[in-house]
Amino acid sequence: MEEVKLFGFWPSPFSRRVIWALKLKGVDYEYIEEDLPHNKSNLLLKYNPVHKMIPVLVHGGKPIAESLVILEYIDEVWPHNPLLPTDAYERSVARFWAKFIDEKTRPMWEFFHKFGEEQQKEIEKNMEILRTIEEHGLGDKKFFGGDTIGIADLVLGMVIHMLAPMAEVVGVKFIEADSFPRLHAWVKHFSEHHVIKDNFPDYNRVVEFLKIRREYYATLSHHDH
Amino acid sequence: MEEVKLFGFWPSPFSRRVIWALKLKGVDYEYIEEDLPHNKSNLLLKYNPVHKMIPVLVHGGKPIAESLVILEYIDEVWPHNPLLPTDAYERSVARFWAKFIDEKTRPMWEFFHKFGEEQQKEIEKNMEILRTIEEHGLGDKKFFGGDTIGIADLVLGMVIHMLAPMAEVVGVKFIEADSFPRLHAWVKHFSEHHVIKDNFPDYNRVVEFLKIRREYYATLSHHDH
Repeated sequence: MEEVKLFGFWPSPFSRRVIWALKLKGVDYEYIEEDLPHNKSNLLLKYNPVHKMIPVLVHGGKPIAESLVILEYIDEVWPHNPLLPTDAYERSVARFWAKFIDEKTRPMWEFFHKFGEEQQKEIEKNMEILRTIEEHGLGDKKFFGGDTIGIADLVLGMVIHMLAPMAEVVGVKFIEADSFPRLHAWVKHFSEHHVIKDNFPDYNRVVEFLKIRREYYATLSHHDH
Repeated sequence: MEEVKLFGFWPSPFSRRVIWALKLKGVDYEYIEEDLPHNKSNLLLKYNPVHKMIPVLVHGGKPIAESLVILEYIDEVWPHNPLLPTDAYERSVARFWAKFIDEKTRPMWEFFHKFGEEQQKEIEKNMEILRTIEEHGLGDKKFFGGDTIGIADLVLGMVIHMLAPMAEVVGVKFIEADSFPRLHAWVKHFSEHHVIKDNFPDYNRVVEFLKIRREYYATLSHHDH
């Protein structure tokens, strides 16, 4: 058995989706917490010289960067409990949504850096993205691929462990049962899955982490005006 | 045999990479030219309701959007002349570079919309991206994956059929032998491959198309000042 190591950062959705994938597969690994953003380890810089970012998965001494690329790799090397469907067309649909959610959820935390009218604009953008996922992505399935958690679900997980506490700190709500019934049901299914639940960052710790950030952004914003 | 259709736009690097993939595989398909940006067909809107953009590949009546997702699909359905390596680790490296180049070359044409100092800044950003690919991506191989054209090469193709004529219209040069010897050799290898060469947009037609665009941007820029 070749050694598996994961370089991550505890509140990051990008390493979190890899942790969930490894746990769903039952792959043993060593987790290395990076001290971000200012104190990156030499190993991280060596393993990911292009992006200098987590997550990096190191398997048998060979590094893989970029969370979506890592998820595909994990699914190829440990094919049990698949993260992608077997059928080529269904695989393309899963990849489409994983890519869409990855790209569109990255700017989703802009609202957390902003205040007043600018914040409101970002909140509306987030609502539009959630609307697209609600209307085109999920259908009436439990998860994106059907009854089991797949690649698109792992990527969307950030709306639970990062977007929701951010919204709490700011005082808004994104995914309510009335406006997003499918997403609301998905949040329940996903967060109650035993592997996800057992490998969730501590909610109160995330809220505390985010409160400090929010105060920092408020100070910056105050200087701007 | 199920029918294959491709919705594209002749100067677009996003549909061009799909054309090359289908030609490398020897897959017969019907090509449907879209009248972009203002006159999208109802079929395109129906097949890609999320992005409303080309390329869309329709196979046996089922649509697939997003060029990287389409390339993976093509490689799974028609596995001969593979676009991805067999080894899982090498596949992850190919995917890493395809993703990197796809993401980083999208803003590469910003220099073409801008003038003066702003244009210069964008040109320098492009040089940095090319520097990263030169130093970390290509190595001393003919193509990204070795001796045959793969997914990352198809994505990087845009530097030849789009970035180079843009540079000509603006009056700059990006990939010169002195500063980017590996990329310079890659441009030669890629553009001389018979499948690529035979399925290249007409260079003079691209230059004429771009000159009209550049004049339009110049008018906009004039209004700004």
